[in-house]
Amino acid sequence: MQNTDLPNEGNKFQVWKLEITDKSKGFMELLQQLSVCDSVSDKQFEERFQELSAYGDDHIGCVIEDNHSGKIIATGSMFIEKKFLRNCGKVGHIEDVVVDAGSQGMQLGKKTVKFLTNHAHEMECYKVILDCGVGNKAFYEKCGFKEKEIQMARYFV
Amino acid sequence: MQNTDLPNEGNKFQVWKLEITDKSKGFMELLQQLSVCDSVSDKQFEERFQELSAYGDDHIGCVIEDNHSGKIIATGSMFIEKKFLRNCGKVGHIEDVVVDAGSQGMQLGKKTVKFLTNHAHEMECYKVILDCGVGNKAFYEKCGFKEKEIQMARYFV
Repeated sequence: MQNTDLPNEGNKFQVWKLEITDKSKGFMELLQQLSVCDSVSDKQFEERFQELSAYGDDHIGCVIEDNHSGKIIATGSMFIEKKFLRNCGKVGHIEDVVVDAGSQGMQLGKKTVKFLTNHAHEMECYKVILDCGVGNKAFYEKCGFKEKEIQMARYFV
Repeated sequence: MQNTDLPNEGNKFQVWKLEITDKSKGFMELLQQLSVCDSVSDKQFEERFQELSAYGDDHIGCVIEDNHSGKIIATGSMFIEKKFLRNCGKVGHIEDVVVDAGSQGMQLGKKTVKFLTNHAHEMECYKVILDCGVGNKAFYEKCGFKEKEIQMARYFV
């Protein structure tokens, strides 16, 4: 397992790689705070977990656990996109960052983004990108990001 | 190989899956019209092509070839992101769509986006997303997309 090393913040809230046991620690309930996320069976979860694990370092999910409650209180994920342009460059895509509503103000979001950004750097990506609502722009600017383009979406369901 | 079937447009400009031989047809030069893309050796190209092929249907690159010149005049790519939220849903990410500057006005971009969007639909994604400059917003609206969020980026190089 890997942890971040933000200075002066101690080890109270470490960032860990997502593990299959995190489902029983409220991982899916945390995602529900971000988006539509009905119940998923243990089997479905394990299958998706294994599919993602098969990508090796090209996909990473991370979590922060509250040691007192044993609940997952922050998460985020990243996949590494392999391109032909930029001399066969790679791009880190940050997805599904969410901090528990009752655990705000402890820099858990910042720790999560830093962990994922570091991973992209280690994977030799030339950039990291993410899409967010306008309301989260200031947060990501504090994480070193700048507004670049617009996101367009087409929903099938 | 797979082709689109836009009505009333004939088969002059079909969309095909990217093949390893497309490098010799100006594929990389076309990407240079979109972004920084210095020369890539045949070996580098083949390695990246094989890496992407290993993803199976979870990654697709497509091209349109000008039958007269034998050159690739449009391209785009998509990778399928597997999530836990949305009941272990999937999202299609469209990347690196470019139409040759000398081949505009023939709906090649629209055909390319339609091909990739269809792929996402077949893969049972719940949505397709992409990032673009404000100047391309109207084009993607014609393709059925709507502006949703903002893209934030952090460059390492």
